Amino acid sequence: MAVYTQLGTGQIEDLLSQYDVGALVSAKGIAEGVSNSNWLVETAAKNKNTKGRYILTMYERRIDPADLPFFLALLDHLAAKSCPVPRTIHRCDGSRFTMVEGKAVALIEFLPGTSPDRPTEAQAWAIGAALAQIHLGAADFPHERANPLGPQHWCDTLADYRQDLLEQIAPALPAMISEAQSLAQCWPNDLPRCVIHSDLFPDNALFLGDKVNGLIDFYFACTDFMAYDLAVTHAAWSFDKQNQFKPGIGNTIVSGYESVRPLEPAERAALPVLAQGACMRFVASRTADWIETSPSALVTRKDPVDFVRRLTFYREHGCDVFPN
Amino acid sequence: MAVYTQLGTGQIEDLLSQYDVGALVSAKGIAEGVSNSNWLVETAAKNKNTKGRYILTMYERRIDPADLPFFLALLDHLAAKSCPVPRTIHRCDGSRFTMVEGKAVALIEFLPGTSPDRPTEAQAWAIGAALAQIHLGAADFPHERANPLGPQHWCDTLADYRQDLLEQIAPALPAMISEAQSLAQCWPNDLPRCVIHSDLFPDNALFLGDKVNGLIDFYFACTDFMAYDLAVTHAAWSFDKQNQFKPGIGNTIVSGYESVRPLEPAERAALPVLAQGACMRFVASRTADWIETSPSALVTRKDPVDFVRRLTFYREHGCDVFPN
Repeated sequence: MAVYTQLGTGQIEDLLSQYDVGALVSAKGIAEGVSNSNWLVETAAKNKNTKGRYILTMYERRIDPADLPFFLALLDHLAAKSCPVPRTIHRCDGSRFTMVEGKAVALIEFLPGTSPDRPTEAQAWAIGAALAQIHLGAADFPHERANPLGPQHWCDTLADYRQDLLEQIAPALPAMISEAQSLAQCWPNDLPRCVIHSDLFPDNALFLGDKVNGLIDFYFACTDFMAYDLAVTHAAWSFDKQNQFKPGIGNTIVSGYESVRPLEPAERAALPVLAQGACMRFVASRTADWIETSPSALVTRKDPVDFVRRLTFYREHGCDVFPN
Repeated sequence: MAVYTQLGTGQIEDLLSQYDVGALVSAKGIAEGVSNSNWLVETAAKNKNTKGRYILTMYERRIDPADLPFFLALLDHLAAKSCPVPRTIHRCDGSRFTMVEGKAVALIEFLPGTSPDRPTEAQAWAIGAALAQIHLGAADFPHERANPLGPQHWCDTLADYRQDLLEQIAPALPAMISEAQSLAQCWPNDLPRCVIHSDLFPDNALFLGDKVNGLIDFYFACTDFMAYDLAVTHAAWSFDKQNQFKPGIGNTIVSGYESVRPLEPAERAALPVLAQGACMRFVASRTADWIETSPSALVTRKDPVDFVRRLTFYREHGCDVFPN
């Protein structure tokens, strides 16, 4: 994680002059996200009594600029419904982003908080509840975006690589090609949908104590099953560093979710398959990143095997983990 | 510039528990410095009314841990004299640093401010005055540290490399070997000394408007000529990106300095040579970094040629730039 682009003080001042946020006081490039450069920016209003803190994000790669209006409008829609997400700051001309050196840049509210590395059950409950709140808030969001990382994508991504290359990374990977196809065949097609986060790892949650103060990094948001988003969150939060399942965390995420939005029976019944699909999504993308990222690159490669293990766990124990 | 080590929220919380600074509210890894990992940390006191912001620095390389007590005591000494430098935060047991994963870590006051990429004359005056203030403040600092990057070091560093390797980097570099030796031979030995910053680039100065709010990164501080520190600052600030000398900036830095501490005649007379030496110090270290750093490394390599050009300028025009 790094800052890919150097922006000078003068460039940041010029940029902020397009917003009604006061004068630049401090700007620190922060090591956050793998697709963006980010700066934590502090401003002082002209009367010097009020201060603002913002995240200045420059979209470097992976994110299609054509999707930016969707992502940024979603933040404003959810923030207006009192969901714990940062607001976007609009330029004086009303637009939500601008271009600097040919790259899109947005100014986003800074929310304090820390990401738990060992979530407590109280935090698990809170993240489940916050996810359901996002789903209810997104229900009347008027835009759609197809999920580019759905079942067809897992199958295509894994089939793109030679078996021996996959085997070099991990002996368990070649078998994922047929497993992705099986999952795609039994993938549900009629569960309740809305715009979902689809990448809610602990890194993307900011807590003050046990309270969710912010969900961030909505750059994988797309229209898909709400229960799939819950399955992604379950797969991302409920295992320790050795990929051991923590039932207290997993069960509490679901309970927290249902305290705000009870699952329909069909959603509950689909959770074992959705959780395997959630794992497969990360197996596929991390395999591609592993192969395409040089070991010496700025970005830390994530081992796809973690999610092979979690997928295997859900295949074997999914019906116990998610009882009907 | 990057964060070399990943510290989790739990590790940072454990670390902060050794200080009387309240509870962790936010921690962002910041892209600052090439020898350290740094986090901008925010805490809330138990009554939740007061907040503190700190830079948490982990010393990764280049800095000898045996030198840390010197660097950190210097900050406290200068801060106590109202010099614009950050205080160190002491642990509850009184110590100024601690070890995490085998690396030294210190907690340092956060000072807001921005580093100018095109300094104004008002800022040039202020930085000269702040440098002199540091020199007066350091006069009774009771510790010494020899300058490891003095004339002998330039000569040894450049002589270490084969001429054809130097020539590959830049045709002007091989001639620097004999130039370093000439400079070493006429280097003064009897100018006023104290502990100096010795690396005061604009990156290491934080301004609020035209006011210096903080000088940072004292990890090259050492006992050497005060006028050499002024020469380093002059060479670092008075040229634009094309290495064109900006006389308004250079003259103003010296005037600002002398508004606080007038130069002795011998110091003034030595400035042309000291400025060439200042440039040679960066020619030598940047050449070594250029050769020893892979182009794909996390750190941006700085072209040594910038300071070959500035050195040539001072050799040809030093007596006009610094009239007696």
